[in-house]
Amino acid sequence: MAQAGSLQALVDALRCLPGVGPKSAQRMAFHLLQRDRAGASLLARALAQALERVHHCSGCNNFTEAETCELCASDRRDASLLCVVESPADLLMIEQTHSFQGQYYVLMGRLSPLDGVGPEQLALDRLVRRALDGKVREVILATNFTVEGEATAHYLGELLRPRGLEVSRIARGLPVGGELEYTDAGTVAQALLERRAT
Amino acid sequence: MAQAGSLQALVDALRCLPGVGPKSAQRMAFHLLQRDRAGASLLARALAQALERVHHCSGCNNFTEAETCELCASDRRDASLLCVVESPADLLMIEQTHSFQGQYYVLMGRLSPLDGVGPEQLALDRLVRRALDGKVREVILATNFTVEGEATAHYLGELLRPRGLEVSRIARGLPVGGELEYTDAGTVAQALLERRAT
Repeated sequence: MAQAGSLQALVDALRCLPGVGPKSAQRMAFHLLQRDRAGASLLARALAQALERVHHCSGCNNFTEAETCELCASDRRDASLLCVVESPADLLMIEQTHSFQGQYYVLMGRLSPLDGVGPEQLALDRLVRRALDGKVREVILATNFTVEGEATAHYLGELLRPRGLEVSRIARGLPVGGELEYTDAGTVAQALLERRAT
Repeated sequence: MAQAGSLQALVDALRCLPGVGPKSAQRMAFHLLQRDRAGASLLARALAQALERVHHCSGCNNFTEAETCELCASDRRDASLLCVVESPADLLMIEQTHSFQGQYYVLMGRLSPLDGVGPEQLALDRLVRRALDGKVREVILATNFTVEGEATAHYLGELLRPRGLEVSRIARGLPVGGELEYTDAGTVAQALLERRAT
């Protein structure tokens, strides 16, 4: 039995959300129509408004509604430090630590040749131009410690070092409060390898 | 650090979806804005259109765009059998079996006093009026075998039987292909209790 056209269209449209398969999409559609029509209406408007207003910051490539985001426009941030992250969520996580006062560049992805994401797709030339603004002294690579994140960091290092920039990578090691016994072998090995004088 | 207003509004709005917490909502918003703006736009329109067009069928209470849904309007369905289910998904599941030729009534929920869902919230008087149309002979209760589903079936039985309707409940027992050894004790006990002469 086919469902009503608009209902089936809504179920299909919900599948564009990451991690939402046919069953969840159906459950979401039923929930919205039966229990939360106000929420659904709000969501439709929020989507349209975000699509219209949100674009990339001319400085850090993060999402913003202004031409330049608050962070890039702030004169309290150290312009000599540029921290490169994969996603806006990573930037938010670093900001939550209150331990970094420099500026950011958000890649909006990672190199992943298998998914067809190469240097052009990530527009790495934009990052290079950003890093060579004359103020940046050190680029901190804070991509994830996944295979793709590591490859991206390696590639960016090779790209930026010859241009006279200092390039660093965030540390790998045991988490704060971590115990050797309950940490995976790869992490312990890295913590040994990257040990530092005290 | 606060995110752009429209972006935060989108993240908040996505949380109206069942099973979506703050982290997933953020991931969904980033995904839509970065990777699937076409999908997001489609979703916004699908939501608006479904909200405008989809309502409840005057016969079976299921979602439909017409005044009466295809199933209720069909003259191929046996009007003497009325199958009561909790949700549109349950109706679809029964239709997929191709083993039922009667008509349906969709409760759009179940009795659940703890959640404030009583007979009024489910508008059970509408079901009673539907069942007493003069054509219905037997009402088949196909609510789930959960605590709430069972309570709902019991309540409906007490409500409909005194009005001269035959009331039945779908069978509980081992699943097709099921083995005693790997079935839970409660199901095996019910299968014994509800045994039938062959």
